[in-house]
Amino acid sequence: MQPGDTLPSTRKLADLIHVNRNTANLAYEELISQGWAESVNRKGIFVPASLPSVSKRISTTFQKTPDFKTSFTWINKFESEVAPLRSQKPALIIDEGFPDVRLAPIDHLMAEYRSISKRFSGKNFLKYGNPKGGENLRNSIGKYLLNTRGLVASADDILITKGSQMGIYLAAQLLIEPGDFVAVGNSNHLLADATFKLCGANLLRIPVDQNGIDTDCLEYELQTKKIKAVYVIPQHHCPTTVTLSVERRFKLLELAKMHSFAIIEDDFDFEFQYEDNAYIPLDNHENVVYIGSFSKTFAPSLRIGFLSGPPEFVAAAATLRKYMDRQGDTLLEESFASLLDNGEIDRHFRKAIKIYKERRNVFCDMLAITFDGIIEIKKPEGGLAIWTRFDKSIDLMKMSNHAAANGLQICNGNSYRNDHSKVNGLRMGFASLEIPEMEKAFVTLKKALAATGPVPNLALVHNYTKVSA
Amino acid sequence: MQPGDTLPSTRKLADLIHVNRNTANLAYEELISQGWAESVNRKGIFVPASLPSVSKRISTTFQKTPDFKTSFTWINKFESEVAPLRSQKPALIIDEGFPDVRLAPIDHLMAEYRSISKRFSGKNFLKYGNPKGGENLRNSIGKYLLNTRGLVASADDILITKGSQMGIYLAAQLLIEPGDFVAVGNSNHLLADATFKLCGANLLRIPVDQNGIDTDCLEYELQTKKIKAVYVIPQHHCPTTVTLSVERRFKLLELAKMHSFAIIEDDFDFEFQYEDNAYIPLDNHENVVYIGSFSKTFAPSLRIGFLSGPPEFVAAAATLRKYMDRQGDTLLEESFASLLDNGEIDRHFRKAIKIYKERRNVFCDMLAITFDGIIEIKKPEGGLAIWTRFDKSIDLMKMSNHAAANGLQICNGNSYRNDHSKVNGLRMGFASLEIPEMEKAFVTLKKALAATGPVPNLALVHNYTKVSA
Repeated sequence: MQPGDTLPSTRKLADLIHVNRNTANLAYEELISQGWAESVNRKGIFVPASLPSVSKRISTTFQKTPDFKTSFTWINKFESEVAPLRSQKPALIIDEGFPDVRLAPIDHLMAEYRSISKRFSGKNFLKYGNPKGGENLRNSIGKYLLNTRGLVASADDILITKGSQMGIYLAAQLLIEPGDFVAVGNSNHLLADATFKLCGANLLRIPVDQNGIDTDCLEYELQTKKIKAVYVIPQHHCPTTVTLSVERRFKLLELAKMHSFAIIEDDFDFEFQYEDNAYIPLDNHENVVYIGSFSKTFAPSLRIGFLSGPPEFVAAAATLRKYMDRQGDTLLEESFASLLDNGEIDRHFRKAIKIYKERRNVFCDMLAITFDGIIEIKKPEGGLAIWTRFDKSIDLMKMSNHAAANGLQICNGNSYRNDHSKVNGLRMGFASLEIPEMEKAFVTLKKALAATGPVPNLALVHNYTKVSA
Repeated sequence: MQPGDTLPSTRKLADLIHVNRNTANLAYEELISQGWAESVNRKGIFVPASLPSVSKRISTTFQKTPDFKTSFTWINKFESEVAPLRSQKPALIIDEGFPDVRLAPIDHLMAEYRSISKRFSGKNFLKYGNPKGGENLRNSIGKYLLNTRGLVASADDILITKGSQMGIYLAAQLLIEPGDFVAVGNSNHLLADATFKLCGANLLRIPVDQNGIDTDCLEYELQTKKIKAVYVIPQHHCPTTVTLSVERRFKLLELAKMHSFAIIEDDFDFEFQYEDNAYIPLDNHENVVYIGSFSKTFAPSLRIGFLSGPPEFVAAAATLRKYMDRQGDTLLEESFASLLDNGEIDRHFRKAIKIYKERRNVFCDMLAITFDGIIEIKKPEGGLAIWTRFDKSIDLMKMSNHAAANGLQICNGNSYRNDHSKVNGLRMGFASLEIPEMEKAFVTLKKALAATGPVPNLALVHNYTKVSA
């Protein structure tokens, strides 16, 4: 009821809820005394224009204790290292490597939604489905994996996830018991590190150089430690975008076999290769859990990813997934299967690769000009981000804060530092900005750099590589 | 490449992959010797019509060990009690209480999808969003909870989930440490039991009678045991559909405060009340985690649910959710918010309640006629299922198997038995069948009953209540 509404008469109320009229009278008196109702002579009883203030909950049934606090406890497993999302809307964002959602063929997706919602007889697609995901989509992704990366996976070997993060979570929950060692790159994808820690893992940080994770260091660690799993991003390592060399791929698989550890292979943006030189995945259906995603290549809010691996592992992952959220969104899954089958996803990626390649080139040039002499970058062969290292005299926190105050959101580099790494670097996404937007962003960045203090000209001293191809 | 396809010439291959032509020659010789290619004089080299048989994966890069087996281990936490989904498509299903998806206003949902995908500038809805769920939907659900059940929850107190199961999983993961006691009804919602066990809970089974979970028994257990959480379905208990009485609600809240345990309140089908007598939720923003869902009332494959509780708990749940799958599907969330705001959800429920009420009445009558004298039922005041108890001479497994062989899927009662309860009962969903479908289903059921053996006429002996209102 709203202020000004009339309450039923006491007689009517008494009838309605089967109480004595005296009880109804007493109830109204109590309401009036508390300020929840007011009586107007000969007119009736009303909800007053201004109600008494209440803390959070209007409850006349269950009285609140005056010292409001939560009396039960829960497990606080979460470290503070994952930064909360920013709530303000900046004019421009240099993200950490996300796709440009303006390119996503959303109209085609909508057309599939409509067509499927009309076509299915009896609306079967709205009923409960398989926790592994729709069979059509698992078949389509099987074909897609074969065509794009020579990976043979039948529908049974594939679990549809809500993006690669669910794949990482499932693998972590199934593989890791508290105290287990998990090897990760130094540095590494932040949310993956945090997910392993959530499951009680001891993170072993293995150096990452130009050829990816250093398998000799891994081998050295294996002499003294039982490692449960190794997490790798072989195509474009996060944050440094390097590709794992063929030699190290063989070495990693050999070590996995010898020491019976699992390889968690996160291949979230396999699709974006600009130099035509992608390797096929490590996945061998023995030691490898292969994780992929369309959310990171198509549009982040469309939660479609996949996990493939030995059938018994995929079955266990499907069971855990059932406990987590029962199943995926069947309508989205069916629509995506259609887009894969009719070639729309392929067309989208072919178009996007051309655009992203140009954006990568322009972004690298702008970086080299803007940060001449104080930045070290290598043009990435694929993926959606560039890894930059700044001279240690540059205060990236100051630069990020100054940029934010002027409408440009860019990370401050803290998330790439950890107990082992004090790197002064940034991962910069080039894909989501059109070239005029980049130009604007770099004007702001240049001012932000100037605001951090006098810029040293280190080009002459250190012989910094501006852009190495 | 497919059988019959031409392979590039050795010269072309050598150019293509930057190797010496001799190397290309050697590679083709190896392929031919293994049966993967065949050379036809003066025509070229082809993929042969019949390929060598391979086990699961065609991999020339990474050789498979002959004894193919998974060499890493994972944690098998899963009990076998959750039955796998059936894969065959029966003609008719008596489910355990699901909505009729044919009634869902899917065209309105599609219209919102279209309108939102056109309206949003820059397709912002496709970018990463808040792990708690879209603010519009959290606001809309806040209003909806206030209007439908007097529950005051601000957008900050609400987390959007992928259905009630995710709410149960989040609560279980955050509250339970291995060895903790969790009190549940005897019997109880199967997947909830399994989720608590997954987290290491010791289940304490509390009897459930006509007034819901027996709080006196709970109090007795609390004298000797520290209970971490109590899981209740106060509106329509699963499986027995009973409503928790007002006296026990107060008692439960009092015990929770005294003994500092959490109440996990699963209110998955609050919407369906046929006798106009729903109670407001227990949720008091102190000890209660309140879980609701639109998946169980609207359409199971549209994964939208919510969790509300003390703000600190909701914040922790949002963090865990971020690790699980990052966030929900923004487009679905925005569309659902519109349907809530424009009253379409309300209209749907008002229409559905009328239909379901009639189906409940007809289904109860059919049960009473078909199983005259051997069944005990009570017409449920709400929800989508009827709880039936059969005379112990009736073999429900046999009945279910016979029905399945004749195109009718119905559960066999095993899932309501556990270490404490040997009940011979079935939970039968009446909502998803139109009346002619019910008639067909009951013809099959009657034959299935006859096939289980001679039916005793117990009506005279035991004075069974056919239908108690």
